[in-house]
Amino acid sequence: MSQPEPALPTLGGAGRPLRIAVLGTGQMGLVCAGLLVDGERAKGSGEAPTPRVTLWAHSRDEGDHLSQTRQSSRLPAFMLPESIRVALSDDQIAEADLIVCAIPVQFIRSVLDRLTPYINADARIVSVAKGIENETLLRPTQIIAQCLGADDARLGVLSGPTIAAELAAGLPATMIAAAHDDGFARSLQRLFGTSWLRIYTNDDVVGVEVAGATKNIVAIAAGILDGLNAGNNAKSALLARGLAEITRLGVAMGARRETFYGVAGVGDLATSCFSPEGRNRSCGEALGRGETLDQYLRQSRFVVEGVATTRSVVDLCERLGVEMPITQMAWQVLFDRLDPIDAIGRLMSRQLRGERE
Amino acid sequence: MSQPEPALPTLGGAGRPLRIAVLGTGQMGLVCAGLLVDGERAKGSGEAPTPRVTLWAHSRDEGDHLSQTRQSSRLPAFMLPESIRVALSDDQIAEADLIVCAIPVQFIRSVLDRLTPYINADARIVSVAKGIENETLLRPTQIIAQCLGADDARLGVLSGPTIAAELAAGLPATMIAAAHDDGFARSLQRLFGTSWLRIYTNDDVVGVEVAGATKNIVAIAAGILDGLNAGNNAKSALLARGLAEITRLGVAMGARRETFYGVAGVGDLATSCFSPEGRNRSCGEALGRGETLDQYLRQSRFVVEGVATTRSVVDLCERLGVEMPITQMAWQVLFDRLDPIDAIGRLMSRQLRGERE
Repeated sequence: MSQPEPALPTLGGAGRPLRIAVLGTGQMGLVCAGLLVDGERAKGSGEAPTPRVTLWAHSRDEGDHLSQTRQSSRLPAFMLPESIRVALSDDQIAEADLIVCAIPVQFIRSVLDRLTPYINADARIVSVAKGIENETLLRPTQIIAQCLGADDARLGVLSGPTIAAELAAGLPATMIAAAHDDGFARSLQRLFGTSWLRIYTNDDVVGVEVAGATKNIVAIAAGILDGLNAGNNAKSALLARGLAEITRLGVAMGARRETFYGVAGVGDLATSCFSPEGRNRSCGEALGRGETLDQYLRQSRFVVEGVATTRSVVDLCERLGVEMPITQMAWQVLFDRLDPIDAIGRLMSRQLRGERE
Repeated sequence: MSQPEPALPTLGGAGRPLRIAVLGTGQMGLVCAGLLVDGERAKGSGEAPTPRVTLWAHSRDEGDHLSQTRQSSRLPAFMLPESIRVALSDDQIAEADLIVCAIPVQFIRSVLDRLTPYINADARIVSVAKGIENETLLRPTQIIAQCLGADDARLGVLSGPTIAAELAAGLPATMIAAAHDDGFARSLQRLFGTSWLRIYTNDDVVGVEVAGATKNIVAIAAGILDGLNAGNNAKSALLARGLAEITRLGVAMGARRETFYGVAGVGDLATSCFSPEGRNRSCGEALGRGETLDQYLRQSRFVVEGVATTRSVVDLCERLGVEMPITQMAWQVLFDRLDPIDAIGRLMSRQLRGERE
């Protein structure tokens, strides 16, 4: 297949390495920075020079520590390659051709408001965050578009089943690079792909973002089942019925149904529901065992994206008139002290029906 | 919703308990027999008297042992309720209104050939086996139809994510009751449903059977990844791409796409790929660790349905012109001594593409 020249590498100018700023030093920020300079680049990316990557930390302390030790307690087995520069001031991200936004969703707006003066007006932006903003009910690329005044052609998403510790260890994985502009999607496919990370392109930005956000809610519910020792039959039923309800929401928001049945949909959902490491599943498990949300979050070292996203999605499904019984159940357990056993009982005792009703 | 009277309970005659014969004393045979007399019947089944259940064993020894001990080494925690009669001769299944066929797929034909003289010409038959017959490439209900000369209206399927040990412990679960005759599907829903087992009806018999058969192949491949310690990112990608290819096959065989995205499709697939107990996953795991198929099967106490099904499905996809790279890879590892690491390498290094290509 002959393909037109992908959009992004040419942005860097002939022969000049692409300049990339990664915002955020959480697990995905670290892993994305590492992927961009990985030695085992995917086929087809060989011609382009390795990009120049700058990693931006929210706090000066965090940046100093990373710069000196090249390590983070958030991803213990990971070593930040020496070729990656840690930004020690905001202006060091200026002139980036590509911004990788790896900021937790509820903080994207405040970070971009701070960094807007340093972001190139032509820069492309790829989001790797998974959630829906509270109050505004916007997806990450919509928040970015608002903050930077960026049009659709500049925006993309990377998503998929990507436990960061596995990516850091170079274990095989897949992701979806979604963008309205197919050339940008293919640029992302080549930039982030390696011999062990296979990236597929997709033009359904809405679907990939909604799937990535909502699977965290189903994962919380799956964790609740784990906390109750309900077994894998129950968890797999939850996965299937959860997939059905997040697909309904996605379609109501303009997504393509098939996106939910692919790598960024059911693939990410499966990892999130079954991997012991998953933050959302772990949070749910604590609730299923009887901890309160406050207790759990006080001692958690990570942002649990699904908690805030559950609030947003309950608002969204009410606004759009979409039935989402698992999401409603998760909301009641999280915020309304519904007993997890009662929650399961209510889901199991709904009117008997056909699968498609 | 007002619904017409379901088809099956009236077959038993006014007030007379339904007579049911369960064929097979594997895990699903035992569990199905137990469900039919479970004390916690689903809503709506309260009016009908508890059915009279006869359990048929392939060998006299097995039948005698079960009859005396009410226990089986195949499902240690399970106790066969006293109200279930174990058939000590083939004629004890005569006059059954409903036959539950829980025989491994490659043995259905020989068992039914033996039992045909004792099977009522009006009896309904529900299949719970998951596979495709070698050589004929028929689904279980097609084999049954051939052997008994039964028309579609008499045939149904029960399927879903149902680890037998969890069902035996009364843990929450879901299944699909599929039949061409909606009344029969609803009868199955009421007969097998309990307060902890929620059953959905579906009229896509082909889809439910093809999904049930082919998920075992993907589970073998998932096990191979486990044997290689490839991680959950890889396994979830395999699940998503496996779902895509078994859906393609199903659609080519006349199934509805959505069936594959439901409880009997992705739900069963998730359990099979992630539950440590899964036989097909465990078989794959042994291959991934370097055992040969012969070594594994010699010491396994169970039929691994996916092994024979892989042969059938490779024939089917070649006949129908459906691309199934994961199934082909599983076949090569199982039967052609392809090194599992090379198999993964080949899947990962295919031409970069869009997700829907």
